[in-house]
Amino acid sequence: MAEQIARSAHLASTVLKTLSDEQRSLALLKVKEGLLKNKTEILEANRLDMEAATSQNLSSSLIKRLDLSKNDKFDSMCEGILDVSNLEDPLNKVTLATKLDDGLNLYRLTCPVGVLLIIFESRPEVIANITALAIKSGNAAILKGGKESLHTFQAMAKIINKILQDDTKVPKDAIQLISTRGEVSDLLSQDRYIDLVIPRGSNELVRNIKANTKIPVLGHADGICSIYVDEYANIEMASKIIVDAKTNYPAGCNAVETALINSRVVASEGFAEIIKSLIGAGITLHVVPELLKQIPAELLEATPGQFVEATESDFSKEFLSLDLAVKAVSSVQDAVVHINAHSSKHTDAIITDNQENADIFLKGVDSAGVYHNCSTRFADGFRYGFGTEVGISTNKIHARGPVGLEGLVCYYYQLRGEGQIAGEYSGAGGSRVFKHEKLDIGNLHL
Amino acid sequence: MAEQIARSAHLASTVLKTLSDEQRSLALLKVKEGLLKNKTEILEANRLDMEAATSQNLSSSLIKRLDLSKNDKFDSMCEGILDVSNLEDPLNKVTLATKLDDGLNLYRLTCPVGVLLIIFESRPEVIANITALAIKSGNAAILKGGKESLHTFQAMAKIINKILQDDTKVPKDAIQLISTRGEVSDLLSQDRYIDLVIPRGSNELVRNIKANTKIPVLGHADGICSIYVDEYANIEMASKIIVDAKTNYPAGCNAVETALINSRVVASEGFAEIIKSLIGAGITLHVVPELLKQIPAELLEATPGQFVEATESDFSKEFLSLDLAVKAVSSVQDAVVHINAHSSKHTDAIITDNQENADIFLKGVDSAGVYHNCSTRFADGFRYGFGTEVGISTNKIHARGPVGLEGLVCYYYQLRGEGQIAGEYSGAGGSRVFKHEKLDIGNLHL
Repeated sequence: MAEQIARSAHLASTVLKTLSDEQRSLALLKVKEGLLKNKTEILEANRLDMEAATSQNLSSSLIKRLDLSKNDKFDSMCEGILDVSNLEDPLNKVTLATKLDDGLNLYRLTCPVGVLLIIFESRPEVIANITALAIKSGNAAILKGGKESLHTFQAMAKIINKILQDDTKVPKDAIQLISTRGEVSDLLSQDRYIDLVIPRGSNELVRNIKANTKIPVLGHADGICSIYVDEYANIEMASKIIVDAKTNYPAGCNAVETALINSRVVASEGFAEIIKSLIGAGITLHVVPELLKQIPAELLEATPGQFVEATESDFSKEFLSLDLAVKAVSSVQDAVVHINAHSSKHTDAIITDNQENADIFLKGVDSAGVYHNCSTRFADGFRYGFGTEVGISTNKIHARGPVGLEGLVCYYYQLRGEGQIAGEYSGAGGSRVFKHEKLDIGNLHL
Repeated sequence: MAEQIARSAHLASTVLKTLSDEQRSLALLKVKEGLLKNKTEILEANRLDMEAATSQNLSSSLIKRLDLSKNDKFDSMCEGILDVSNLEDPLNKVTLATKLDDGLNLYRLTCPVGVLLIIFESRPEVIANITALAIKSGNAAILKGGKESLHTFQAMAKIINKILQDDTKVPKDAIQLISTRGEVSDLLSQDRYIDLVIPRGSNELVRNIKANTKIPVLGHADGICSIYVDEYANIEMASKIIVDAKTNYPAGCNAVETALINSRVVASEGFAEIIKSLIGAGITLHVVPELLKQIPAELLEATPGQFVEATESDFSKEFLSLDLAVKAVSSVQDAVVHINAHSSKHTDAIITDNQENADIFLKGVDSAGVYHNCSTRFADGFRYGFGTEVGISTNKIHARGPVGLEGLVCYYYQLRGEGQIAGEYSGAGGSRVFKHEKLDIGNLHL
């Protein structure tokens, strides 16, 4: 069963990759129209999910997220498909062109990765977004959404498949919905046909998937971000940025979890200022014992509940709450060493007015995002200007940080000749020498 | 032990990545000079390997490959280090720059992957080449070479480590040699510190490594390449290209293993011509039964040993010999379907004078290299003009086809601000709107 799903997705991907941007975009327009036309049916399915959620006493915030009928949520979901469709085509871009010899030209072109297995949360509108991303980037996708929205997902998938088959050049198996966890675990062994797994969900989900597949996984389990307050930091700026990075959305993977304060700042009046700002913002500080001693007694006594003695593990933890681990470091180099040993390679920031120290930090920290004088919360595909976001990757290869459509493509080489054989060339038995002339990519039309 | 090796490589990588191209290139110059200065010591170690190989009756071709003392092999090994050093710096290239807002600029820069685990064959000069590749690309490397050259490798690694420590800014742990298979298998579980495994060796070695690690593996197990002779092929060109692709170096991963002949060609006089050329070149043809019947009797009878009835598995096999699987297909579309189902996604070619069919093939085949009217044997980093080659990747992400220095880098984002926080912006509680203006990459100096 899993093999059948994966294989048919692969076959669909080999057709989908040959379609033009126009054909892929037209398909998305049809999908959008089809969903709008079948709004009543989809909202009826959504009502079933809502009823089930209510009868199971799920949290009101979850129930609110499930509800597709409120305000213009349904219509903006459909508009979102067009937004993706209007992004620049990520495919068939020539990124290298070399004349190997007369009449023997090498081209490198972007192409889809192939088949994606995408596991996502329960928000019903996400299925529309992912369908748009997959088709726009020429990838087939196997989708598994949170079970709370199953009826909605099934209704939408049925409509999407029918539209693809009846009204577009995109094979219907390019988008397949699966509904059980068992199917996911079977699919994780289909590395022959599935090229990339994209889990969007809890740390535990991502860790579990990474531990159970040979297929490359794009995403992140943890977001352990740090902010280093340098000796030359503007204290007011540092306070403001840490408060934002911690409190703007504490459950976000780009929220800060660790503050590293330079010892000279600790020894200055600025230290109490920073602590006051953080405490005032409602943050609970997990402070290493030796630093705890340096916090002015009046601060400690005013809100004792907001000061906790930090343990070593606090510095490798994603709190997902208004908690922050705090320690002192003696230099920017020490901050870099701490971060490279403890961070999840997501996003880390330095606050300093000293460009030299900023450069040491920007070059030395081994994370997908390294920031100077701004909040880690900017680590986000929309904020980066990618128009959409597949996820945020803490991988070291292929794609790092917020991933847009570009993260769903790779490349291949075309070599166009006139009958050339290797044996004519030096190194393989012959005497011809390669020319290796760079060709101008700007004027190419392949 | 394995953790210690991996961790120290990781620490070295965090220093190495901060060095300038000048510092990395100077280190390679020092390594080159040091190896030359210690030529006697290295050749003495090499003599021990040669003696062991002789006493174990290893094949004369292997012994010849081990010998570092013949002709100018030692000196050209040292020159090769400078060749790599002189390549364009792959690091710190700005590949994207966006003004998110006034005083808030986003940059994407290339950076090393981190720590490489490279497993390679017994040719002693390869350790010098890999050291050069790793240092030039800013990656730390843990090296395991074939055991037949162990003495040579150990002598060279000792010298390289000493030079790095005494005369360069590169930490000595940036290059570490390990000597046993047990260490390799322990290292394969160090996914916390090792970012990429590059196995260069037999299909079995690569398959075994892929099956036993969570670390991404760059390379290929099989090279199952096909050539499709289209209805509109120039028959003489087709014959010449297949002969080259099969016989120029049959053990190469870019050698052809399958020929797909269009049925109209089979029905024409051209078919006998092609068969005659292949037989004349000493190739044994594994032909599907229905096609075998169409081969002229006089050809079959002249060299009956060169005709074998093909089995299904012959079309998923890397022969590594003068054997070729042959079948007929009814169209270019059929050829694409066959290749996408059977190939190892390495390199496949079409021979045709019809541009439309060529385009169907070039777009439809899902391989790292898709060729028109030339031999699959061109799939090679040197022939592509990359100056050097880390290996050939059949992966679907990160790097595909022949991989040069570019395959050893990824990217990270720098965000440079002036105190901006997310909460000021629309979507995160504020009202500021991102500008998302593209900046000119050409004039950037970061």
